[in-house]
Amino acid sequence: MTDAIDYARYDRIRPIRWTGDALELLDQRKLPFTVEYLACRTGDEVAAAIHALAVRGAPAIGIAAAWGVALAAREADAGSAAEAAVALEPAMQRLNAARPTAVNLAWALARMRAALLRAQAGDGSDWRDALEAEARAIETEDLAANHAMGILGASLIAPGSGVLTHCNTGSLATAGFGTALGVIRAGVAQGKVGKVFAGETRPWQQGARLTAWELMQDGIPATLIADSAAAHLMKTGAVQWVVVGADRICANGDVANKIGTYQLAIAARHHGAKFMVVAPSSTVDMDTASGESIEIEERDPTELFAIGGTRTVAEGVPAWNPVFDVTPAGLIDAIVTEKGIVERPDTASMRALFAA
Amino acid sequence: MTDAIDYARYDRIRPIRWTGDALELLDQRKLPFTVEYLACRTGDEVAAAIHALAVRGAPAIGIAAAWGVALAAREADAGSAAEAAVALEPAMQRLNAARPTAVNLAWALARMRAALLRAQAGDGSDWRDALEAEARAIETEDLAANHAMGILGASLIAPGSGVLTHCNTGSLATAGFGTALGVIRAGVAQGKVGKVFAGETRPWQQGARLTAWELMQDGIPATLIADSAAAHLMKTGAVQWVVVGADRICANGDVANKIGTYQLAIAARHHGAKFMVVAPSSTVDMDTASGESIEIEERDPTELFAIGGTRTVAEGVPAWNPVFDVTPAGLIDAIVTEKGIVERPDTASMRALFAA
Repeated sequence: MTDAIDYARYDRIRPIRWTGDALELLDQRKLPFTVEYLACRTGDEVAAAIHALAVRGAPAIGIAAAWGVALAAREADAGSAAEAAVALEPAMQRLNAARPTAVNLAWALARMRAALLRAQAGDGSDWRDALEAEARAIETEDLAANHAMGILGASLIAPGSGVLTHCNTGSLATAGFGTALGVIRAGVAQGKVGKVFAGETRPWQQGARLTAWELMQDGIPATLIADSAAAHLMKTGAVQWVVVGADRICANGDVANKIGTYQLAIAARHHGAKFMVVAPSSTVDMDTASGESIEIEERDPTELFAIGGTRTVAEGVPAWNPVFDVTPAGLIDAIVTEKGIVERPDTASMRALFAA
Repeated sequence: MTDAIDYARYDRIRPIRWTGDALELLDQRKLPFTVEYLACRTGDEVAAAIHALAVRGAPAIGIAAAWGVALAAREADAGSAAEAAVALEPAMQRLNAARPTAVNLAWALARMRAALLRAQAGDGSDWRDALEAEARAIETEDLAANHAMGILGASLIAPGSGVLTHCNTGSLATAGFGTALGVIRAGVAQGKVGKVFAGETRPWQQGARLTAWELMQDGIPATLIADSAAAHLMKTGAVQWVVVGADRICANGDVANKIGTYQLAIAARHHGAKFMVVAPSSTVDMDTASGESIEIEERDPTELFAIGGTRTVAEGVPAWNPVFDVTPAGLIDAIVTEKGIVERPDTASMRALFAA
């Protein structure tokens, strides 16, 4: 099988490590200059790490939160699974509140609650073991989903293609391999993707700090560009696919993702480049009809005033700092999930994905 | 006349000051935190200041270079205007080489050479006085052109409009008032422009550092956004006009301007927002048929790696750092020069502007 991926080469980074009694998180605030794992020994330490952005990326946040519940279970003063369900709820609420907009976070906590209910129903398992097993399953399934999405997404890409990505959707944002970066890794491994470009992703610089670093670890040098150079790059013919992740996918295929994604989708359509969104099915929220009902999180304007502690903007300047934007389904050529590919997404085709 | 502008209020910044024996340049490398003028006493000091970006913006560079010739004239060991033409040529060459891509720089030096020729032809003037007078004329005409363009451009804007601009095209980039920022100033003064947005303009942050500071001096608080938030902003309906400057305008109306301009033009067209380019007629290069023949200057990739000295990107990451891009005439609703407005520019309408 010529399309097989050499994962030993192309999937080397693990942002989340379970040691048996602690959760180690690759501290993304210190990248790319310091590779350091932060050890969390309690559920609240995990919640604090999520809140402080030591771990980021919707799938990675969900996985970390699941392990956070497993850690909280160790501390919990509870005999039965029924008692645990009550005792763990405050810790779960604190984990849930650490980054309220990420749909995967609530999804992972719901899975942990369901695992506890199964133990409570008397399936014979120790409830602490059951929670640890569920966290491991969430992590393992995420990695498997990323490998599957990588193959699926790369199948859409013609040999010799140039690819542009945005933000960080890689190993660092997931259990490993990544979503959009997983497709890019698979495309490179299969010899289809010739050149990779990464937008720096203002204001947090996830592309500049994380994506450029991460791909270099796997021997995939991505060329960094200013976010505003994307259309000019497309005009040169260097980009056949824009490949991005998603924070939330609506029932009609509208996609909420990092600020700047929408602008790339418009530029891609203008130049005839294709636009692919890659995200696990846990990112799809069939209860949200369209992007119009998504409230866009706005963060502190001061994030635009300094980079790495060096202030560049005068005192008193107002700023607007939305974190996400919504790309309408009409600008999207393909949504890739582990369940399959939806081309030219709309409500019917998105429903069909889940009915299959 | 209700449309009259209160220039005492809306035109207060002067980046270039002639003291009689020195040229003082508002050092733009130190803004927005330090307001400090750099005194140049020789032509070569002016060339060095242009090269080092102490003064920037195509019109301001041309004005500074003209004054640089006036300073060089004081040092020149020449009796007659004919001797001066020979003696000053090396200094003019060095001024011209300080920023070779700015068309206004060559244009201003050509005017200084022509003034010298007139003195040589025996128009009775002292050639040193003639050169100083020509530099003053270039500066005065630029300011007058900006005032004229402000009124012209604002005439296109409907009351209650929101305006987005890019880079810095203001007082700092000109003799005063600015080109695109002059239109915005005039629009605010006339009560037409309700809200002003400024893109931060990676990688040099001219929007964040200079435009936000400059407009605040005149009591026009501009809301800063990440460059990649522009399309999302347009989607909210907050932008009726994108107003930008130009580094070069081609015979067919294609416009070379700061990287990111083209992306804004595409997004504006997508949202039905209008796109205006404001530049003095000295920026129009009728010898360049279209944008396709413009070679885009690429600068050192390391400009993307750090901001204000704080590095954010890992060692070894490749980058692509084009400084300009070309916006095709088809995406431009109006080009505003001091000679008049060209709506929906093409080769015929651009020619008509200069024939008038």
